[in-house]
Amino acid sequence: MSQKPSLYTVLSPRLLDLYDISNSVVVIIDVFRATSTIATALYNGATKVIPVDSVDNCIQIGNATGGITAGERDGKVIPGLSYGNSPAEYPRSFIEGKTLVLTTTNGTKLLHMALKNGADEVVTGSFPNLSAVCDYLTSQNKNVFLGCSAWKDRFNIEDAMFAGAVIEKVKNHFTIHCDSSLMASDMYRMHKNDMFSFIRHTTHWHRLASYGLETDLEYCVSLDVANILPIFKNGALIV
Amino acid sequence: MSQKPSLYTVLSPRLLDLYDISNSVVVIIDVFRATSTIATALYNGATKVIPVDSVDNCIQIGNATGGITAGERDGKVIPGLSYGNSPAEYPRSFIEGKTLVLTTTNGTKLLHMALKNGADEVVTGSFPNLSAVCDYLTSQNKNVFLGCSAWKDRFNIEDAMFAGAVIEKVKNHFTIHCDSSLMASDMYRMHKNDMFSFIRHTTHWHRLASYGLETDLEYCVSLDVANILPIFKNGALIV
Repeated sequence: MSQKPSLYTVLSPRLLDLYDISNSVVVIIDVFRATSTIATALYNGATKVIPVDSVDNCIQIGNATGGITAGERDGKVIPGLSYGNSPAEYPRSFIEGKTLVLTTTNGTKLLHMALKNGADEVVTGSFPNLSAVCDYLTSQNKNVFLGCSAWKDRFNIEDAMFAGAVIEKVKNHFTIHCDSSLMASDMYRMHKNDMFSFIRHTTHWHRLASYGLETDLEYCVSLDVANILPIFKNGALIV
Repeated sequence: MSQKPSLYTVLSPRLLDLYDISNSVVVIIDVFRATSTIATALYNGATKVIPVDSVDNCIQIGNATGGITAGERDGKVIPGLSYGNSPAEYPRSFIEGKTLVLTTTNGTKLLHMALKNGADEVVTGSFPNLSAVCDYLTSQNKNVFLGCSAWKDRFNIEDAMFAGAVIEKVKNHFTIHCDSSLMASDMYRMHKNDMFSFIRHTTHWHRLASYGLETDLEYCVSLDVANILPIFKNGALIV
């Protein structure tokens, strides 16, 4: 029997360089809400999503591509941009055939680190596209790193829970010797049946729910409601 | 009612500078095995324990203080030092009245970082001195950071489990808005009744058990068997 590839979970961008990610697949996870919104926009027919790490880049790339500029701060659309970070803002009737230029700090930082550190492929994942991510990972026969975007480099529960959800589905295909993965699996198994109530205890929920985003957050932990695979090619996420 | 102090859990030394630890109490946690051994040596009457981060420092300080030099690599006493890292090596009949100079990489690094970043008090904790740590924390009315030493900066389960054990005992005395703490509590609650079997799944167990250290590791997750508080003063841990 051939050796199975390895799977690791990385709990913060700050910890990524502890691992050799060369020639691997890195899954960027930013459940609340960047990678949930990316899956949704592409599922609903966006041509591509360009993730950017600053408002200036967003405006500049939006101008250059004719794309829709999007980004929030404190629950409001950032001045100079046109739309926010909510998946609910990107139904098919609006986003189909368009380019979305999305400002996201934590997720974009991790994505660029993954590319710089030699990842072979970078995809994005969240609960809305869980199955598509898992199907891809099991088809590749490469080492996998589940990269949690975290919040300003601090560990967050919801990204780890998604890592746990992935592991539950793919674990038979990988060698897993990683305490972060063990923890993520346990946390997901413990809470998968009370997800909507459990996530109300997380710090990110408290931060965002105060802006009236409860419905958004529940969507972000809903399984397979935008089940496509965003993969990073030539500077943009495409299907 | 006065404001409660805050409690945070820091999952790796690499994440410590994300937090303002000034004027706080930092608990250094290195369950397998440094902080378990430190508690045990002091419980059994050691005068003090000097934690050092290198073999050269260990030998030099051992010579200067007449202390016992200790440290392991790959489960064997490091050449040039006299004893290992096992709590079982430091019964009262041997260690009482002596100074122990202990080489520990992960824990010592975190301890020095905590001091440099302005911690007011630094203590060490592991399951053998759980209650002493908790009694101290609830008596201080200061912010608390539970600092996991991790393994080469990678998250490990056993240190997080001890953080969870502390939180379970002290949570009513602190304001806790921290996903790392929420996770640590959940993991401890999930596994406190099957600790001896659960820790066999951790990466650190696999690393150390291959050196025949199972009994040691079980001791390190035993509650209150060396229930004193090591506190860092003038370069050494004392009771």
